[in-house]
Amino acid sequence: MQSWQLPEHIADILPSTARQLESAKEQLLALFRVHGYELVSPPLLEYSDSLLTRIDEGLSLKTIRVVDQISGRQLGLRADITPQVARIDAHLLSANNGVNRLCYAGTVLHARPDGFLSTREPLQIGAELYGYAGIEADIELIDLMLKSLRLVNVTEPQLALGHIGIFRALAEAAQLSEADAHILLGMMQNKDAEAVRHHGQSLQLATQWVNALALLPTLYGNQEVIERARSALPPLPAIQAALNELQTVCAAFANRPVHIDLSELRVDSYHSGLLFAAYGADWPDALARGGRYNDLGKHFGRARPATGFSFDLRDLIGHLPQSAGWHGIKVALGDAGAAAAEIERLRAAGECVMVDYTPHTRDPHSCNRQLVWQNQQWCVIPLAD
Amino acid sequence: MQSWQLPEHIADILPSTARQLESAKEQLLALFRVHGYELVSPPLLEYSDSLLTRIDEGLSLKTIRVVDQISGRQLGLRADITPQVARIDAHLLSANNGVNRLCYAGTVLHARPDGFLSTREPLQIGAELYGYAGIEADIELIDLMLKSLRLVNVTEPQLALGHIGIFRALAEAAQLSEADAHILLGMMQNKDAEAVRHHGQSLQLATQWVNALALLPTLYGNQEVIERARSALPPLPAIQAALNELQTVCAAFANRPVHIDLSELRVDSYHSGLLFAAYGADWPDALARGGRYNDLGKHFGRARPATGFSFDLRDLIGHLPQSAGWHGIKVALGDAGAAAAEIERLRAAGECVMVDYTPHTRDPHSCNRQLVWQNQQWCVIPLAD
Repeated sequence: MQSWQLPEHIADILPSTARQLESAKEQLLALFRVHGYELVSPPLLEYSDSLLTRIDEGLSLKTIRVVDQISGRQLGLRADITPQVARIDAHLLSANNGVNRLCYAGTVLHARPDGFLSTREPLQIGAELYGYAGIEADIELIDLMLKSLRLVNVTEPQLALGHIGIFRALAEAAQLSEADAHILLGMMQNKDAEAVRHHGQSLQLATQWVNALALLPTLYGNQEVIERARSALPPLPAIQAALNELQTVCAAFANRPVHIDLSELRVDSYHSGLLFAAYGADWPDALARGGRYNDLGKHFGRARPATGFSFDLRDLIGHLPQSAGWHGIKVALGDAGAAAAEIERLRAAGECVMVDYTPHTRDPHSCNRQLVWQNQQWCVIPLAD
Repeated sequence: MQSWQLPEHIADILPSTARQLESAKEQLLALFRVHGYELVSPPLLEYSDSLLTRIDEGLSLKTIRVVDQISGRQLGLRADITPQVARIDAHLLSANNGVNRLCYAGTVLHARPDGFLSTREPLQIGAELYGYAGIEADIELIDLMLKSLRLVNVTEPQLALGHIGIFRALAEAAQLSEADAHILLGMMQNKDAEAVRHHGQSLQLATQWVNALALLPTLYGNQEVIERARSALPPLPAIQAALNELQTVCAAFANRPVHIDLSELRVDSYHSGLLFAAYGADWPDALARGGRYNDLGKHFGRARPATGFSFDLRDLIGHLPQSAGWHGIKVALGDAGAAAAEIERLRAAGECVMVDYTPHTRDPHSCNRQLVWQNQQWCVIPLAD
């Protein structure tokens, strides 16, 4: 094993990419700012009890745990920033009963990668809105998600919508246990209508609920799915409300194609309502995901309506604008002292100026100019080859 | 134990501070850039063998370890970024035999805090120069360190210099074992000349080396310390070379008071030459530290001359410029649709505009203006109290 080898699904970010990422992050945070989102930076390390707010097998398996040398308690390295931001809204910013708009950008760590090509160190960037339950807040976040992706050069991201409220309403009406609901949710996610029907029957659910549950995996497509669902699903008030929300969101984004999938429920266990995601043209998985999670703050002492989205900026490296490159200015070591004032003047004007300590090696920084003394003054001239 | 409680020496960074830190970081990276330093982002998680390049008790105790679920090998969470950057220079950027100027800004994790008030999640920011052994490179880094501190509002940081080469030359001449050198180094750091003398005698070192070693803890003060050392220490070539380097650095910073301390060796075990630090007026410990470490890359297959510095930006929060505050613009929910174009125009101009979903609660964002329809146009007017 060589000492420079890195663990699988772990990588260095080298100069040009690091600048791209940093610059994209700065632009995204500036975008969030003009939309009113304040930046927070929760810690990488917390008590695992705080990071894992409820039974969430996926998040729990992803969370790397260590023993705290100070308290002896179990710590976790965050695998998701959203629960931390919910904690901040619930506890630290609890003096505000109105709306909190918060955003973040930080590394999370996964014990195992999400997929074959995934990193175990995603750079999670996202925005969350607390304190308002209306669908207008979800629309605001979807709009911000789409703007974020356009900012990092994803042209025409496709919007996909789902609503966990429909499944929850059926599960409640059918009086499913939490364990059975969990099993059925897995079958939904695999779009396995037959398995859903079979499992529902084995639980001796009323035919009405078995039919409705088995119907969900078939309810996907364009906006007309909403009308199909309205006529085919039981007229429970929670289902009507969810479908109304979907309709309002579709109307708000009427100028773009919207994909609806009522069984697309690949969400974190904390989600409670509208779900949304954005897909790129040539991308296997969603680029960004979000949704409503109204109860997460309860774990921290204050249940609040909440909605938000996030994405892994490292996923999008291929899309990011190329960084400008250096086009730096070299100064010979012997000139550096005499030219000091001119060097500082150039740097203050944004030029990258560096002393050339090793004139006989190839230029590493692709400097394209040099600072020389000519005609009684310091001049920047093209670099002689 | 409440679920919102954080481990000791771990804290959230809340909105105004988070913006301050982010903005300071952006400015520091821009400063590094105009000096020719390229950004790299090594991972948080590596094999511990790569993070811990030699016997370094301090760094090893600080490094949090976990078992890799993929390889079964031991991973470490980085406690210091410098060894990672040395790895990148030695291995990934090894096509360049000239100078590599690299910089970084990232979180490191410490199993135990450095001190009573220290965080276990410092935000380490620094710059390193590889490939040039001359003292001019150290001077460049000291200059950049002082500029960095001025950028984050530390006025007139005091420069302190040391040189591990003097102790190393004496240890070599006296043929000290690595273990004994380590013990004596600890005594030096405590400025305990008596203990040094006693231990040297117990090792039956020649009187010449005992006297020289016991003298080091007394050699501190202003620039005249160099002349005192020249006349009092044995005239070993390595000692003369180290004192010449100190003199050159003093001359380069002749316009400021410089403190020299030949036993101030509180350094990482990888340091090999000139050591430097910057102190603030009312600060117990150094704000920034750096020095030369010529052999670190050997561990990764390429020994290269290297010098650099770093500091914890979170240490300096109290110094950072206050962030500008919001001065946002509110829009009533009922107006948001009709005003959409005007809202986007204001945001593009850098204004922070947000929909007011909860008009009856106290304004959380200290918006000071609102967007209203007046005289047939959208106007930004002061917020009515």
